Amino acid sequence: MSVFLHEEDLPDGVLEGTSALAVDTETMGLNTLRDRLCLLQISDGGGDEHLIRFGPGSNYAAPNLRRILGDPNRLKLFHFARFDLAAIEHYLKVTAAPLFCTKIASRLTRTFTDRHGLKELVKELLGTDISKQQQSSDWGGPVLSEAQKDYAASDVRFLHRLHAEFVIRLEREGRSEIAQACFDFLPHRARLDLMGWPEDDIFAHS
Amino acid sequence: MSVFLHEEDLPDGVLEGTSALAVDTETMGLNTLRDRLCLLQISDGGGDEHLIRFGPGSNYAAPNLRRILGDPNRLKLFHFARFDLAAIEHYLKVTAAPLFCTKIASRLTRTFTDRHGLKELVKELLGTDISKQQQSSDWGGPVLSEAQKDYAASDVRFLHRLHAEFVIRLEREGRSEIAQACFDFLPHRARLDLMGWPEDDIFAHS
Ligand SMILES: Nc1ncnc2c1ncn2[C@@H]1O[C@H](COP(=O)(O)O)[C@@H](OP(=O)(O)O)[C@H]1O
Ligand SMILES: Nc1ncnc2c1ncn2[C@@H]1O[C@H](COP(=O)(O)O)[C@@H](OP(=O)(O)O)[C@H]1O
Repeated sequence: MSVFLHEEDLPDGVLEGTSALAVDTETMGLNTLRDRLCLLQISDGGGDEHLIRFGPGSNYAAPNLRRILGDPNRLKLFHFARFDLAAIEHYLKVTAAPLFCTKIASRLTRTFTDRHGLKELVKELLGTDISKQQQSSDWGGPVLSEAQKDYAASDVRFLHRLHAEFVIRLEREGRSEIAQACFDFLPHRARLDLMGWPEDDIFAHS
Repeated sequence: MSVFLHEEDLPDGVLEGTSALAVDTETMGLNTLRDRLCLLQISDGGGDEHLIRFGPGSNYAAPNLRRILGDPNRLKLFHFARFDLAAIEHYLKVTAAPLFCTKIASRLTRTFTDRHGLKELVKELLGTDISKQQQSSDWGGPVLSEAQKDYAASDVRFLHRLHAEFVIRLEREGRSEIAQACFDFLPHRARLDLMGWPEDDIFAHS
């Protein structure tokens, strides 16, 4: 189990295969058009976590990473995919589909609570505590602290296990199909964010 | 141009063909599981409007209507399709797709306003005034008043013309594809309403 830090792209030959990929991003903030993509975390669930750092002024060419993210045969696992999809679409020019989103899965199965944060899911479903302390830190600096690297890696560390658990729960509650429909719409929801409808519920009456 | 009132189903041989169908519904209220479907209005844009009335205790068998609504080769035109789709799904047990929703088309093109009601669309795009006075009336009674029939019919009268105009505007603004993605998700959004997620934006962070 190691955390690898790469600059600007994945090295050749890493994360090849067909397994699902856990993916997360860190940016300069929540305004995707303004706040650049600083880091992308990715793991195939085998134990290693890869952090790819993009410097200021990056051209986000990243051919290896983009090929893997866009691979139609590999499921991408996210927590709150909407945000990461938008950043990946905007900066890396690729749609990271097909996908599974643990926040939507949680909304559709954990109807007994309104707490659907990653920290809560990892705690309740896997019995593990993760720290969210570095969440709002400066991801754009020239060096990442050990605490930042730990945090970034831990954001993808549990997604395979959460996914396995939510697949069971969605099936148990008869909601796998509606979940899939939501996942399939998420790239479009992310595109609406980029196109200028970030706040509105486009499906609301008014 | 006539308005026809039918009981419990469309007569045989009516509205056959391949043209798009304007569809609207009137119910006892906005809570679809509680408030029964009283009336379905449908028109092929040829000038006639058909109102199908369902009595209290109706079994909603309506084989002719259900076949036409579920026809995968006929586009269904709605204003705020989400609501009508849920009522049609729940009572008539059919998914009225493929579809076009003029409220979503308006949100995606009329970015200069936040008024996306049918009355505003008909006024601005077609220069016609429609009355919304009968909107909140009792659609479940044994006879519909002339005012109710007029109102119900006028709710489908302008959808073909609005559709034609919005197709042009969506294309002009480069938003046809995102609109189609939204339309394709609407039956799922309506199903979420029926399954118990009527208020929440399922795609929101929290
Ligand atoms: N409007 C918003 N409010 C809070 N967090 C948001 C957000 N939009 C996107 N996010 C991101 O959603 C992710 C998951 O949040 P949560 O765990 O609360 O469900 C967080 O990512 P990171 O954990 O990668 O920083 C956070 O940055
Ligand atoms: N939450 C809500 N608030 C108001 N109208 C709603 C609604 N949910 C569904 N509707 C329906 O949305 C339709 C279109 O509304 P609007 O013109 O304001 O956009 C109305 O149908 P009817 O016009 O068939 O009665 C209304 O009944």
